[in-house]
Amino acid sequence: MIKRSEDRKLNFGAGPASIPEEVLQEASEAILDYNASGLSVLEIPHRGKLFDNILDESKQLVRELCALSSDYEILWLHGGGRLQFSMIPMNFLGAGGAAYIDSGHWAQEAIAYAGYYGEPKVIASSAGERYASLPEWPASIDPSLSYLHFTTNNTIYGTQWPDIPLSPVPLIADMSSDMLSTQRSYSNSAMFYAVAQKNLGAAGTTLVVLHKDMLARTARRVPPMLNYEAQVRTNSVLNTPPVFAIYTALLMLRWTKRKGIDIIQKDNEKKASILYAEIDRNSLFAAVVDRPDHRSKMNVCFRAKNPENEQLFSDFCTQNNITGIDGHRTVGGFRVSLYNAITIQQVERLITLMQAFEDDHKKD
Amino acid sequence: MIKRSEDRKLNFGAGPASIPEEVLQEASEAILDYNASGLSVLEIPHRGKLFDNILDESKQLVRELCALSSDYEILWLHGGGRLQFSMIPMNFLGAGGAAYIDSGHWAQEAIAYAGYYGEPKVIASSAGERYASLPEWPASIDPSLSYLHFTTNNTIYGTQWPDIPLSPVPLIADMSSDMLSTQRSYSNSAMFYAVAQKNLGAAGTTLVVLHKDMLARTARRVPPMLNYEAQVRTNSVLNTPPVFAIYTALLMLRWTKRKGIDIIQKDNEKKASILYAEIDRNSLFAAVVDRPDHRSKMNVCFRAKNPENEQLFSDFCTQNNITGIDGHRTVGGFRVSLYNAITIQQVERLITLMQAFEDDHKKD
Repeated sequence: MIKRSEDRKLNFGAGPASIPEEVLQEASEAILDYNASGLSVLEIPHRGKLFDNILDESKQLVRELCALSSDYEILWLHGGGRLQFSMIPMNFLGAGGAAYIDSGHWAQEAIAYAGYYGEPKVIASSAGERYASLPEWPASIDPSLSYLHFTTNNTIYGTQWPDIPLSPVPLIADMSSDMLSTQRSYSNSAMFYAVAQKNLGAAGTTLVVLHKDMLARTARRVPPMLNYEAQVRTNSVLNTPPVFAIYTALLMLRWTKRKGIDIIQKDNEKKASILYAEIDRNSLFAAVVDRPDHRSKMNVCFRAKNPENEQLFSDFCTQNNITGIDGHRTVGGFRVSLYNAITIQQVERLITLMQAFEDDHKKD
Repeated sequence: MIKRSEDRKLNFGAGPASIPEEVLQEASEAILDYNASGLSVLEIPHRGKLFDNILDESKQLVRELCALSSDYEILWLHGGGRLQFSMIPMNFLGAGGAAYIDSGHWAQEAIAYAGYYGEPKVIASSAGERYASLPEWPASIDPSLSYLHFTTNNTIYGTQWPDIPLSPVPLIADMSSDMLSTQRSYSNSAMFYAVAQKNLGAAGTTLVVLHKDMLARTARRVPPMLNYEAQVRTNSVLNTPPVFAIYTALLMLRWTKRKGIDIIQKDNEKKASILYAEIDRNSLFAAVVDRPDHRSKMNVCFRAKNPENEQLFSDFCTQNNITGIDGHRTVGGFRVSLYNAITIQQVERLITLMQAFEDDHKKD
């Protein structure tokens, strides 16, 4: 049995994010003995039946939950988003150049990394609006580009693309912070990827899904470890993979399937809608993102209208065993992350606190 | 309490390797609740006191256990050895070229990766002896080389350098499989590194130790994630680090300190010496490495003199709840890995089985 459940903090952090208690329980047991194998999951060989089964089932679940055709390859790689920011241009930035949509901090990081391998073209940006809205998707896209990169959900500013837009060139989507949060058609994407520590488990691995057509597009000589084609050829076991992080992702995928993506989507919509409604109603707070169709359902960003209330509300949450709601160090304010593991009841608890805070601090 | 200790397999695998039961117990508990924080170790923020303490203590323990001066920087990076095989030439292979000592499979992989960034010079090799001995350390080394790379312990062939040799150019040592197994002077090395899944814990992070002088030697533009200087500047928290793998490494480092490097060294010498003695004595087996001063104390490789006995002895071990003794898929035979977590009693148990096997199968 999980211990001290009553003392568990309510973690609205943007990542490493909250993990369901049943997943923690299963991971904890596997550390002692994996599946009655007499070995810890930290000790099982990465070339052998025990790990093959973990890998196969995790890939099968990603395929099923995303309704992916067999044209897509599924990889679990080392490193986080920034290793993908490196590998994408390293592998694919060819003579046609590459385009990026600049929707904020993470998009800008991806652009900066591409600058080491060529000259990325920023073909849309909402920098002028301080990223409080999504950039307008470009009306025309140069068909000779090697690829177009964008970020589906922007954790720091709280914006999110409702759908995956169409593109005449291979579309590469960073879905790190909204992967598996909603039902989506992935068939527009040539590649998408997501770090694990949001909806997929624990930090230490990154899910990469690639259309087979991309494998022939490697634009330069890339050593195997950093080469998507070599990683596909060796089924993510080119070297010792981060076994435990992949196993935790498998546990999260099983949890996701048990709950159902349709229910998860419905819950995520409900969580976001009641929280935005409270922010809009509450006289002490203001949402960062105005346009309802640009608001993220994963990361809800808001600020105190009176700056003096920022620290007070932050302290009030801490006193109430809530953690992780401070905004990103670059922007301040508050950010409530509503990843799949967060329940409607937990959001209601926060709303009750916001109302209690208003009662205590509003000027009559 | 750890469960099913009696059923724990005796794991002589080369990595992911055996982990002490007390470390597994602590890791398992931290998954449920880290240090009474109300958060799982999988959920703690990577920018904050909880993780800072893990990082600081782990670095302090590496510094202490290796008796490193403050001239060395300590990093915990994503990925495994092959990411280091990429990053080393990416960062340091300059106009002077780089030299490699070819002592077998892993050295050859490192050489192949360097080939993506220049023309590595192989200045010593024991390929002619099928790597059953160490190459002769070169009598003269070109002082204009950017660096010289070698592998301290060769898991597949069972050879090991007793000391870190001297070099007039920056010496980079892959210590993946014998890190912290013995008391060593590290001051000859400009850099050394070790993947975690041997003596350092679980797969998913790599320890890198760099002399400060190396940071000024970056030979080309390398994006921050793959750039040692940027990783040092951000104290291994350039992005979300593999928190759990680093925490498990900390638990292993604490265990190593409690036991003491001097005792670990003595035990490792004892384990290796009784096992080699049995192989040399036993009429059915033969050691792969003849020269006593080239024999690895970490990975003891041997074969059955009669090939028919290979499968029989392998099955006999499996029946006796022993796992991981099959040789690497590229060479066959047997390989018994004697990493720090393996006890003298466990080696004695294997020796008893080897003797019982001899009694049953020797021709009178």
